[in-house]
Amino acid sequence: KTLNEVLFFPSEVACVEHFFTPTATHSCFCSLPHGVETSFYRLLRHILSASSSLDLCVFSFSNADLRRAVLLLHSKGVAVRVVSDKDYSAITGSQIGVLRKAGICVRCDVGSVHMHHKFAVVDGRRLITGSLNWTLTAVLNNMENILITEEPDLVQPFVKEFHRLWVLNDPA
Amino acid sequence: KTLNEVLFFPSEVACVEHFFTPTATHSCFCSLPHGVETSFYRLLRHILSASSSLDLCVFSFSNADLRRAVLLLHSKGVAVRVVSDKDYSAITGSQIGVLRKAGICVRCDVGSVHMHHKFAVVDGRRLITGSLNWTLTAVLNNMENILITEEPDLVQPFVKEFHRLWVLNDPA
Ligand SMILES: [Zn+2]
Ligand SMILES: [Zn+2]
Repeated sequence: KTLNEVLFFPSEVACVEHFFTPTATHSCFCSLPHGVETSFYRLLRHILSASSSLDLCVFSFSNADLRRAVLLLHSKGVAVRVVSDKDYSAITGSQIGVLRKAGICVRCDVGSVHMHHKFAVVDGRRLITGSLNWTLTAVLNNMENILITEEPDLVQPFVKEFHRLWVLNDPA
Repeated sequence: KTLNEVLFFPSEVACVEHFFTPTATHSCFCSLPHGVETSFYRLLRHILSASSSLDLCVFSFSNADLRRAVLLLHSKGVAVRVVSDKDYSAITGSQIGVLRKAGICVRCDVGSVHMHHKFAVVDGRRLITGSLNWTLTAVLNNMENILITEEPDLVQPFVKEFHRLWVLNDPA
């Protein structure tokens, strides 16, 4: 059966440390609840399921755990490409500069048209899209939705749109 | 086959008058292009396909053509319910007051949690969701996406979430 899943936010707060330090599962002593499958937990798991590529097109990206997830994929050899908004990526708290410094290819939308997307394509076949910006506020304080699907009729247009934006914003 | 469609914005500009004055198809003399199936045209057509109900949950609603579409459905006897953001609905250009005056049930999110959704459910079975706010800027000036699906695994969670928000924001 085709993967189809919907997540709603705000997410409960729970520890996600085990995604980044696998040995922490039984040994994290932070004060957050552990082992809780929150919406954010599930979002992170879908992103971290990437084995070959992650194409990310987000207006704003300031969430530190999402930044850690993207850096982890990059360090494992997953091909990560990011398209983001030029104005937003320059503001305080944006993680775009950190991704660039880590060697991830980031292209910023340079036109006058505002880039308001918030979607990701995992391994060219799993779409993650919705209202949620990749910020802390969105995850914890806003009512938001994220839809995850592997339905080709929904995924393929986003794959094409990512490619179009990637080429369009080629700085070369 | 299950309906699955993706629309990208900004939309080209074209006349949509024929949706509201059916006799205008052959007789509109405005300066916009006619008979062009833009993304906005397709979005309007999906909304106007409602025959029994339209449940709308949008952060911002200032687009006049979308307001006309919602009023048209209401005048035809379609049960329209709207959940919107309290702060945004008070700003200049918001169409929420117009909907209320026309007798449409509108409930504003009254909590401290920011309502950032932009989805609609048509006849309880067709989901319209994405990054697009119901504003003129979003339609004409932003890169945005809208996904339309009748896949039950994707539609049902949104039907439930709408019901939850509707009850939660009952002013009574
Ligand atoms: Zn912990
Ligand atoms: Zn016209």
